Amino acid sequence: MNTFGNLFRLTTFGESHGVAMGGVVDGMPPGVAIDEDFIQEELNRRKPGQSDLTTARQEDDHIELLSGVFEGKSTGTPIGFVVHNKDHRSDDYNNLRHVFRPSHADYTYQTKYGLRDHRGGGRTSARETLCRVIGGALAKLALRAYNIKIQAFTSQVGDIVLPLPYTAYDLSQSETNAVRCPDAETAERMATLIRRVKSEGDTIGGIVTGIISGLPVGLGEPVADKFHATLGAAMLSINACKGFDIGAGFSAAQARGSELNDLFYTDKAGNICTRTNHSGGVQGGLTNGQDVVFRVAFKPVATLLREQPTIDAQGHPTTIKALGRHDPCVVPRAVPVVEAMAAITVLDFLLINKRY
Amino acid sequence: MNTFGNLFRLTTFGESHGVAMGGVVDGMPPGVAIDEDFIQEELNRRKPGQSDLTTARQEDDHIELLSGVFEGKSTGTPIGFVVHNKDHRSDDYNNLRHVFRPSHADYTYQTKYGLRDHRGGGRTSARETLCRVIGGALAKLALRAYNIKIQAFTSQVGDIVLPLPYTAYDLSQSETNAVRCPDAETAERMATLIRRVKSEGDTIGGIVTGIISGLPVGLGEPVADKFHATLGAAMLSINACKGFDIGAGFSAAQARGSELNDLFYTDKAGNICTRTNHSGGVQGGLTNGQDVVFRVAFKPVATLLREQPTIDAQGHPTTIKALGRHDPCVVPRAVPVVEAMAAITVLDFLLINKRY
Amino acid sequence: MNTFGNLFRLTTFGESHGVAMGGVVDGMPPGVAIDEDFIQEELNRRKPGQSDLTTARQEDDHIELLSGVFEGKSTGTPIGFVVHNKDHRSDDYNNLRHVFRPSHADYTYQTKYGLRDHRGGGRTSARETLCRVIGGALAKLALRAYNIKIQAFTSQVGDIVLPLPYTAYDLSQSETNAVRCPDAETAERMATLIRRVKSEGDTIGGIVTGIISGLPVGLGEPVADKFHATLGAAMLSINACKGFDIGAGFSAAQARGSELNDLFYTDKAGNICTRTNHSGGVQGGLTNGQDVVFRVAFKPVATLLREQPTIDAQGHPTTIKALGRHDPCVVPRAVPVVEAMAAITVLDFLLINKRY
Amino acid sequence: MNTFGNLFRLTTFGESHGVAMGGVVDGMPPGVAIDEDFIQEELNRRKPGQSDLTTARQEDDHIELLSGVFEGKSTGTPIGFVVHNKDHRSDDYNNLRHVFRPSHADYTYQTKYGLRDHRGGGRTSARETLCRVIGGALAKLALRAYNIKIQAFTSQVGDIVLPLPYTAYDLSQSETNAVRCPDAETAERMATLIRRVKSEGDTIGGIVTGIISGLPVGLGEPVADKFHATLGAAMLSINACKGFDIGAGFSAAQARGSELNDLFYTDKAGNICTRTNHSGGVQGGLTNGQDVVFRVAFKPVATLLREQPTIDAQGHPTTIKALGRHDPCVVPRAVPVVEAMAAITVLDFLLINKRY
Repeated sequence: MNTFGNLFRLTTFGESHGVAMGGVVDGMPPGVAIDEDFIQEELNRRKPGQSDLTTARQEDDHIELLSGVFEGKSTGTPIGFVVHNKDHRSDDYNNLRHVFRPSHADYTYQTKYGLRDHRGGGRTSARETLCRVIGGALAKLALRAYNIKIQAFTSQVGDIVLPLPYTAYDLSQSETNAVRCPDAETAERMATLIRRVKSEGDTIGGIVTGIISGLPVGLGEPVADKFHATLGAAMLSINACKGFDIGAGFSAAQARGSELNDLFYTDKAGNICTRTNHSGGVQGGLTNGQDVVFRVAFKPVATLLREQPTIDAQGHPTTIKALGRHDPCVVPRAVPVVEAMAAITVLDFLLINKRY
Repeated sequence: MNTFGNLFRLTTFGESHGVAMGGVVDGMPPGVAIDEDFIQEELNRRKPGQSDLTTARQEDDHIELLSGVFEGKSTGTPIGFVVHNKDHRSDDYNNLRHVFRPSHADYTYQTKYGLRDHRGGGRTSARETLCRVIGGALAKLALRAYNIKIQAFTSQVGDIVLPLPYTAYDLSQSETNAVRCPDAETAERMATLIRRVKSEGDTIGGIVTGIISGLPVGLGEPVADKFHATLGAAMLSINACKGFDIGAGFSAAQARGSELNDLFYTDKAGNICTRTNHSGGVQGGLTNGQDVVFRVAFKPVATLLREQPTIDAQGHPTTIKALGRHDPCVVPRAVPVVEAMAAITVLDFLLINKRY
Repeated sequence: MNTFGNLFRLTTFGESHGVAMGGVVDGMPPGVAIDEDFIQEELNRRKPGQSDLTTARQEDDHIELLSGVFEGKSTGTPIGFVVHNKDHRSDDYNNLRHVFRPSHADYTYQTKYGLRDHRGGGRTSARETLCRVIGGALAKLALRAYNIKIQAFTSQVGDIVLPLPYTAYDLSQSETNAVRCPDAETAERMATLIRRVKSEGDTIGGIVTGIISGLPVGLGEPVADKFHATLGAAMLSINACKGFDIGAGFSAAQARGSELNDLFYTDKAGNICTRTNHSGGVQGGLTNGQDVVFRVAFKPVATLLREQPTIDAQGHPTTIKALGRHDPCVVPRAVPVVEAMAAITVLDFLLINKRY
Repeated sequence: MNTFGNLFRLTTFGESHGVAMGGVVDGMPPGVAIDEDFIQEELNRRKPGQSDLTTARQEDDHIELLSGVFEGKSTGTPIGFVVHNKDHRSDDYNNLRHVFRPSHADYTYQTKYGLRDHRGGGRTSARETLCRVIGGALAKLALRAYNIKIQAFTSQVGDIVLPLPYTAYDLSQSETNAVRCPDAETAERMATLIRRVKSEGDTIGGIVTGIISGLPVGLGEPVADKFHATLGAAMLSINACKGFDIGAGFSAAQARGSELNDLFYTDKAGNICTRTNHSGGVQGGLTNGQDVVFRVAFKPVATLLREQPTIDAQGHPTTIKALGRHDPCVVPRAVPVVEAMAAITVLDFLLINKRY
């Protein structure tokens, strides 16, 4: 269905070329100052047309809050919101009405539901993620009271990989370049690659890394709703995501216990810490107070500005070439979405954990 | 919490050294022949003491079904079950009462709940997964009517990787060796590595690959409950799991759209297929009828049969050396658990999808 | 929280004097013709200002569908909707900012959330029920394919009770009078009573009876989600509702088994029926194919157009007299709300039941 | 399905003549002293064979806790439990295999699931409620820390009604007689009626009233999960329950606002109270700190020790006469079940409310 979370819940609706995108945040803690400018800034980080690395679609993506806020503060009642769609050139998609685009959701949606809104991908468009950014922005506002920080960044585009561990960088620098990579030199190489791929009518994949710091010990609800299982599901639900790992992640498969175990120690302030963080901040499905470190793998965008063979709704061969406007690499715009889903997950677990 | 699934739900309970492990399967389709031998065989695939590659703990792991079955068939009412614990040598764990083992859940559970059953890891023991195997076995019995097959196998141990794609192997051969790898020669190398690691008092990680074939098109509930997001959460909830990916997965980050798109064609029988399966059987969060192919990364077991520095509950330095019996590599016994979680996920989505 | 249902889910938002009321219907079956005129008619049945028996507040209550519909049909994706508030005279409520009205939710909301939107009752206003009517109208559209009929009517106002069993009336006549009672003569007496009560600045309670016919056998999910338990919760969640019963209901407490048992027989068409329907269409928590018959008790509206003693937010004595516009009896406008909640409940169970 | 609650969840399983009844309590607060004697006492209040007013079936109903408790305290992990069935004379039910008993669930279960365990009513037997009593007993243990009291009693049997409001009685006296009525004289009349009905092979209905005192202000989650809506669903899910109301309940339908409004005042201790409690402790779906007062209506048991006409599974006429052992009136044994469901509801809302 279209709802994320338990005590803090985001429900989204909207098609790419429909009237509006929107949603409901239920369970917003009451009394939180609702900084609308901040929400809009978060939306702006995701919106199209930010740079030559992203789609040329122009959208204001202006948020309207419809409820749940009184005199600048959340009341604890549900926050309804909408963002009207404006620059939708549905005619660009007329050729898609009876065609299944490769590696898109056209075929699966048509088969499951028996009909679909083909315009701009309809419900399957990544435009849906703007609702998640709004939900995430509200969660971030609530998390301010806890001094929890969530920061994501581009750590890989194609074969260009951020060379050092995240602790070697000032992550806030990610927002100073269009790729959202904290290392300026790597960012430049990534941008060059994206431009080259784009010029070839092609697309490229990448990885977003997320860091959550300041978490209390014990978030997560074992054994089914482990912190990283729920976080993983949140990430895997993002368009084009094909993988998720935490801490040492897939590289843990190659490691020995003697090198991967995180040894405990007590710091001068009396806090229990670990000397390494191969666990990625989660042990036994519960946060351990160290940074949560996770990676989210994105495939290249399936829409290509070049001709591809495919089939139509009758199963007959045909060809397709995108006329719409699309991102050559989804990763830079996925960064705020990853943060949003992390914020929603964290706040939900935080509220659930208050019962203890 | 301790429940998986929506219309088909597994709730589990039990501590490693408590009276019993057990659970409830709610939503079992009625009229399914309950083959108790099959359930026991599935349990036997997971149970300890199968070979020199696994822990020496001896458990019959004999299942008792308490309800929901009448004259050999499921009635649609909840199936309660228990497996009594027998060979628990709790004294082996007395030294753990006031100590936090590195990269285990002792510290996080103690902090979250304020107390814990330390014996054998209590609730955090991987022994909990036997309940999942039972739930999965019941799901597999229900899936027989759909001709859906679920097969997992060991594809990596340490740096030893199954060399060819899964389609090159007869996957049923996985069960002919203790490692559960479909290639006998690779299996032998993996076994040798595990024995060497074990002899050094160390442990090693690995990867389980899962294949689900015979799925109808359209399983999954977008956008929050995409097929691979829910499947990923199910896998990430398994003890020691640190990563999940589907299809091209993390390698998709390096790829271009032009090489990763799965082109559609219509086969001679009139079925819509794809020429490649980089999507791993899921497009737009819905199954597309191709094999679902996913990987699950496991870290090395944290318990080492060698001395490690750590801290006690007061935060003071101490050392620890396991006296209990533990697996040098979790992967061979994780194979049936991966299958079980896949079966639970598939059946649940199948039942949900029946409304269309 | 603010969500009803499982596979068919309605989430609502909005405050009485906020920007808009609205919601999301998730799980709408795909391919259903979306008759917007019908939805608007249902809304009109609930809207204020219909007659001299209801509040004088004037609202167009014009629905805007924002998503989930393509070329006149539902697509299976979530349907977002809003109804903008227009005739809100928030100044009428300035005197309520620091006062707790008797038998209203001011005190409980203020205590729970620490703040509240006091204007027109904010979230606690019965205006929220218009969102339910929209959700119910969508459910009714989907139920057309099943030939299931849902009809509610006013069966009691104060001490004036509809004299005969519902089968003695043409229920469609309920909509021919402002009270929504199927018997014209009783309706006139009820209207007279409401006018008299209104003229005294007072309010009066009543009962709505609901009939659901055409249901298949077996709806409901025992033992926790019995049909009538879920239906009861749906009704009890309606503003001012204080009681729910089904079939013989509270009168069953006085009866003997020998007089209350519904004896089975097979009719000429071979259908299994019952000679009486004291069960109210539900046995063992599952529908039995007979009409579901239930009653919903509403208390008199708490807002009085006369002075009442109360306390302010500091707990000091004060008095209050409503300046807003209010219904002297909630029952006539509750009829479409009862139908809506019944439709949502039925469709949800119907979809869940498809798995069998 | 078979699960009650959200953060505090009870899942039950078991058939009347199966191996065992049982369940899982998930979300038990950690650190609660688990008084097994108290749980057994609660079970004993519900068990058959207590007096000549109840069924003659003999069951020890001995509880076995299987997990979630360590050194006498709850650990926060799920508590699995079983009660083995002993005195099941399944042969008494052989005649029911192919017959649908009037006003029982035989027909609806058979139709929904296609098969059923007919022995003793199988899953539909009220024996299932013993699992609820166990869940409720655990909830009561957790509620001890909050000084919340839950007390139910028999307020009506047939046409014999407890004459005065509950505040006129010492409710603890309910446990001094077999009927569980706080007024000895009324209890005696009720007992006489039940005995007479029993001697005639008939059964009789009744009402249980529940009182919850000591609740904080603000429990309940509007608008869907109002306190009394969830409480109502919990009660309506109990076998033979046909109605629920709160506070003035159905009598509110006859009342005027001027007589039903509960006027606020501040008591000497500075607490905000109401002079009357027609609201039954709930306003706007949230508890207001006054006693929650509710009624639960039970129909007469459908099983009669006299011959009744009915049909068999082929729809042919036949007759039936119970050979099993049954209660002539369910109400005395329903009292602890009502308390249990109330305790589960209260604890769940209390835990959810902690997030504020």
